[in-house]
Amino acid sequence: MNYRESLRIVDPTLRDGGLVNDFRFTDDFVRALYRANLAAGVDYMEVGYRASKTMFNPADFGPWKFSDDEKILQVIGEPDPAIKLSIMADAGRCDYETDIRPKSESPVSLVRVATYLHQMSITLKMIDDAKAKGYEVSCNIMAISAVQDAELRDALAALAKSPVDTVYIVDSFGALYPDDTKRLMDAYRDTVGAAGKGIGMHAHNNQQLAFANTILAAEMGADWLDATYDGMGRGAGNCPMELLIGFLRNPKYSLRPVIEFAGEEMEALRAAGTVWGPSLAYLLTGQFNQHPRAAIAYTKQGRTDISAFLGEVSSQS
Amino acid sequence: MNYRESLRIVDPTLRDGGLVNDFRFTDDFVRALYRANLAAGVDYMEVGYRASKTMFNPADFGPWKFSDDEKILQVIGEPDPAIKLSIMADAGRCDYETDIRPKSESPVSLVRVATYLHQMSITLKMIDDAKAKGYEVSCNIMAISAVQDAELRDALAALAKSPVDTVYIVDSFGALYPDDTKRLMDAYRDTVGAAGKGIGMHAHNNQQLAFANTILAAEMGADWLDATYDGMGRGAGNCPMELLIGFLRNPKYSLRPVIEFAGEEMEALRAAGTVWGPSLAYLLTGQFNQHPRAAIAYTKQGRTDISAFLGEVSSQS
Repeated sequence: MNYRESLRIVDPTLRDGGLVNDFRFTDDFVRALYRANLAAGVDYMEVGYRASKTMFNPADFGPWKFSDDEKILQVIGEPDPAIKLSIMADAGRCDYETDIRPKSESPVSLVRVATYLHQMSITLKMIDDAKAKGYEVSCNIMAISAVQDAELRDALAALAKSPVDTVYIVDSFGALYPDDTKRLMDAYRDTVGAAGKGIGMHAHNNQQLAFANTILAAEMGADWLDATYDGMGRGAGNCPMELLIGFLRNPKYSLRPVIEFAGEEMEALRAAGTVWGPSLAYLLTGQFNQHPRAAIAYTKQGRTDISAFLGEVSSQS
Repeated sequence: MNYRESLRIVDPTLRDGGLVNDFRFTDDFVRALYRANLAAGVDYMEVGYRASKTMFNPADFGPWKFSDDEKILQVIGEPDPAIKLSIMADAGRCDYETDIRPKSESPVSLVRVATYLHQMSITLKMIDDAKAKGYEVSCNIMAISAVQDAELRDALAALAKSPVDTVYIVDSFGALYPDDTKRLMDAYRDTVGAAGKGIGMHAHNNQQLAFANTILAAEMGADWLDATYDGMGRGAGNCPMELLIGFLRNPKYSLRPVIEFAGEEMEALRAAGTVWGPSLAYLLTGQFNQHPRAAIAYTKQGRTDISAFLGEVSSQS
C-alpha cells in the first residue's frame, strides 16, 4: 500500500484550521505552508473556503474564508506543477454560480463540495457546475457518523451516477471507531468505488483515532487522505500530517519539511494562543456522536467543570 | 465484544505514570485514584513497581517505585473485593525472592513480570516463584516492536509451557501500527493463547495509536487491557482510560468517575508541571522504533530544535 501510485494527500490546514482562528493566517504563514507542502510532496493544498460574501461579512474573517482567486494569486501565485490547489464550497453557503469561475481563469484545480446529506440536490447541482467549468470535483459528506444507512446508500447511488471524481467520508464529530470506518468503506466501495470514483477520508481527532481511521481507510482503498500540520483543525483537529507521512514511507513524500513546519510554524501559532487538539470536552462530544460546538464553547469559555459538561452532553443523547 | 465477561481493565497510572514523576504521588492522590477505579469498575489497579532497594536508593524516589506491602496497607488498606491490586516486578531489577512475600501476607493479587526477551530465563524463574507464592502472574514482554519473530516464537513457546496466567504485548516504543498489532496478536493466539493463557495489551501513544491498538487487540481476543487516566505514562503516555471505558459501553464500567478524575486530579498534576503525552519528539522515536529516552531528554531540556532532533533520531536507525 505504501507505494500505491494512486494515493493523494490533501492538506486542509488553512481551511479546517481556519475554523479555529477565523481564517486569520498571515500571508507569510500561507507562503511558508505552501513551500512546506511543495517540499514534502503533498499533492493538494486546500487554501480555504469559497464562502458567500452576501452570507458572511468579509470584515469578520480572514481572507481564506473566501479564498478569492486574486488573493491566491497575490500570496501564492500560479502553483508549481508539482502541487495542486483546492477550495471547499459548502452547500448552501456559497454563491458557486458566480464565485467559481471557469478553471481556465483560476489557479484552483479541485473544488471540494461539502454537504450534509439533506443537501444532496443542491450538491449535485454544484458538482455539475464545477465539472462543467473544468475542475476536478469531490463531494465531502459531513457528519457521516450521524446518518442513516439507507439515506447514505441513496446518496452514494446518486453520486455514483454523477460526474463527481471523488467522494469523501467526513467524520465531522470524531465519532467513528475503526469498525465504523470499515463499514463505511465497504458501503463506499460497493457504490461510488464500483462506479470508478475515488474514495477520500477526512478524520477528526476527538477520540485520538484520526490517524488510525485514516490509515485504515487507506488500507481499504481510500486514495484521498486529508492531513494537516500538527493536526490543526476544528476542535480536536484532524489527522496529523507528520504521522501520516511518517507512516507512508513513500519516496514521493518527505518527512523533514513536515516536521520542521509543525515544530516551527505550528508551534508558533500555539504559542500565540491558538488552541486545537484532543481534550476531555472534545472526547465527550465524539463519544456521544455530537457536533463539537458544545465542546468548542466549553473550551473558549475556559470552563473546567468537566463533570457538569458530561451531564450536558449525555443529556442531549 | 463490548459485553465480554472475560475482559479486564488494568490501571497502571501509578506505575507507568510514576516513570514521569519518579513515583512522587501524594497519599491523597493515591487514595483518590483508588476510589475512582473502584467507582469506575476498573478490575485491577497497579500500585507501582516492586524495585530492589539495593539497586535503587529509596531516597531518590517516591514510595511507588517499591510499593511495599506496608505502604499499600497504610494508604489503601486491604482492597475492596471489587478490585484487585497489582505490582510490577522488572526482571533483573528486583529482589523477588525476598521482596515478594506469599500472597496470604500481601494485599497484592497480581504480580506482573516485565521483561526484555533476553531476560527470559530469569523471567521464567520469577514466574515460578510468584505462582508458588500464590499470586496471579502475567509476563509483560517489553519493547515488542524491536524483537525478531523467531526469538519471540521461542519465548512464547516457553511461556505457553510455564504456569504464567497472562502474557502481554508491551509496545514500549509506541512504534506499533495496527498491522503490527494484528501480526503480534496472531502470534500470541497461536502460542500462549492456544495454551489457555490470557493475552494483554499495553500500548504507548507516541503515534496517537495507543487507543486504536488497544481496541484492535481486544477485538482480536486480548482480554487484559491497560489504560491510564489522561493516558499518564512514560513519554507519550498510554491508552487513556476515558477513551477505553467510553468505547466499551459495558455496564460493568462507569465513565463518570473516570472523566471526573481525569478532569480534576490529572489536570492538577499537569497544572503543577508534570509533563506527558504525544509530541513531535515522541512521534519521532516512535516512528523510528526507538526507546523514548532521547525524546524524554529533549523534552526535559526544553529543546525546540526539532529539525536537529530528527537528524539525531534518524541517524540512529
